Amino acid sequence: MRMTKDELQAFLAREFPQMAPMSMRIEHFEGDSLRLSIGVNDSHLRPGGTVSGPTLMTLADCAAYLLLLGQIGPVALAVTTNLNINFLRKPEPTGLVGEARMLKRGKTLAVMDVLIHSEGQDAGPVAHATVTYAIPPARKTT
Amino acid sequence: MRMTKDELQAFLAREFPQMAPMSMRIEHFEGDSLRLSIGVNDSHLRPGGTVSGPTLMTLADCAAYLLLLGQIGPVALAVTTNLNINFLRKPEPTGLVGEARMLKRGKTLAVMDVLIHSEGQDAGPVAHATVTYAIPPARKTT
Amino acid sequence: MRMTKDELQAFLAREFPQMAPMSMRIEHFEGDSLRLSIGVNDSHLRPGGTVSGPTLMTLADCAAYLLLLGQIGPVALAVTTNLNINFLRKPEPTGLVGEARMLKRGKTLAVMDVLIHSEGQDAGPVAHATVTYAIPPARKTT
Amino acid sequence: MRMTKDELQAFLAREFPQMAPMSMRIEHFEGDSLRLSIGVNDSHLRPGGTVSGPTLMTLADCAAYLLLLGQIGPVALAVTTNLNINFLRKPEPTGLVGEARMLKRGKTLAVMDVLIHSEGQDAGPVAHATVTYAIPPARKTT
Repeated sequence: MRMTKDELQAFLAREFPQMAPMSMRIEHFEGDSLRLSIGVNDSHLRPGGTVSGPTLMTLADCAAYLLLLGQIGPVALAVTTNLNINFLRKPEPTGLVGEARMLKRGKTLAVMDVLIHSEGQDAGPVAHATVTYAIPPARKTT
Repeated sequence: MRMTKDELQAFLAREFPQMAPMSMRIEHFEGDSLRLSIGVNDSHLRPGGTVSGPTLMTLADCAAYLLLLGQIGPVALAVTTNLNINFLRKPEPTGLVGEARMLKRGKTLAVMDVLIHSEGQDAGPVAHATVTYAIPPARKTT
Repeated sequence: MRMTKDELQAFLAREFPQMAPMSMRIEHFEGDSLRLSIGVNDSHLRPGGTVSGPTLMTLADCAAYLLLLGQIGPVALAVTTNLNINFLRKPEPTGLVGEARMLKRGKTLAVMDVLIHSEGQDAGPVAHATVTYAIPPARKTT
Repeated sequence: MRMTKDELQAFLAREFPQMAPMSMRIEHFEGDSLRLSIGVNDSHLRPGGTVSGPTLMTLADCAAYLLLLGQIGPVALAVTTNLNINFLRKPEPTGLVGEARMLKRGKTLAVMDVLIHSEGQDAGPVAHATVTYAIPPARKTT
């Protein structure tokens, strides 16, 4: 682990101000897993009072990104190369929590999966994603 | 085809006002393919002057959705069940065009793929997605 | 649970005799998870002494299938609609174990993921797959 | 293009003798696309007279592999990192043809898609796959 939970949270606020409306909060980060929550506001809702697919995809992508950066440090220009998501249940119009898990971190690729739940619901996960990041070759961390 | 290009464009404006900032325009719709363009503004850009992954995923999801609705009509509560996207090249900070193609439209599932290019670029596609929609059983179109 | 571990094993031998060379064994089945092992013989090996990709995909597909049938009963003509697999590490030329987990079982679709390890190895998973099965509408179990 | 169609066919026979039962034939290879056909024999059939999922996955994987090798030469130890397949229609118990297309060939990753049809059928594709190969860094071709 190259970064703490608080360092990741500060990095997120500084480098991705456009994410501020999602109220992302890193709830937990340790070893090979990271938990990221988002608040849901009107702009993420779809007709019928559910959360939009792009909101779920953004949560999955960010949870994976933060888990990887937490492990390799903040300067890496890691980019998503593949994201596969299954939408499982209609999310409630509440906050969401994504649990990212590192499946493999190699020199050039990292593969993670993310299980997403509606906050305070027992109905089972609303989505499951697998996310692959490419790690740039010369990642001289400062 | 149950809807024309113009009917789809009107449906999009009426039902998804939250998409307005993306300036989505249906460029073409005929038979098994639909072309959707988006303008890109500052909120979609990432550091380094590229378009964010969630913007590309939203474009893929919407192009597939509109192609399906164009074929089955506007009332269906179709929902995305799976989206798989490969990010191929760094997009230029310009508009994007997605070409959706129907691979299979069954009674309960429709599978499409979407090839995304940066507008006015010859460098090859920036992303390729496959998108599955579930079609609700009782889709009595009006 | 509509079938026991032993009933699933007998079903596999009876209905899929062509799988016999893989020496599939259901190691565990309870609730939402099932563990399936395969022996690996020469026909599954690739140059370099590793297990072929199709062997891993077959293991993932079968583990998911058996988990689903265990829950809904043996007569269902369930068919795979999507399989997404990430190959994580080079498998050792030994047996393999796949852990299937039910993520969502709906009326028409079931989504599972499967984590595959080389037997007796601590190096981390060799592959991770998500598998979607379509459940036919009239699945009158006997 | 580093290899011709005939060189690829000879490479396949020499390096992958275990594929011989599938009767793979490279029908066409030019630029960014390659067409691979397989004969289907009893061992690929499933109850109900259709072709097994693993057979379709093997065809997709091999068509992508041969397209990549045709472009970068025969010595590369390229390995599949991701395969995503949608099963679209029940294949007829006949031969199959896969059309692989290069979407992006970078220094470390190549992404292709493969559209699979039953031979001599007009009913539309039976499967669509996207396949990612990792290209090893020191691929000194002889």
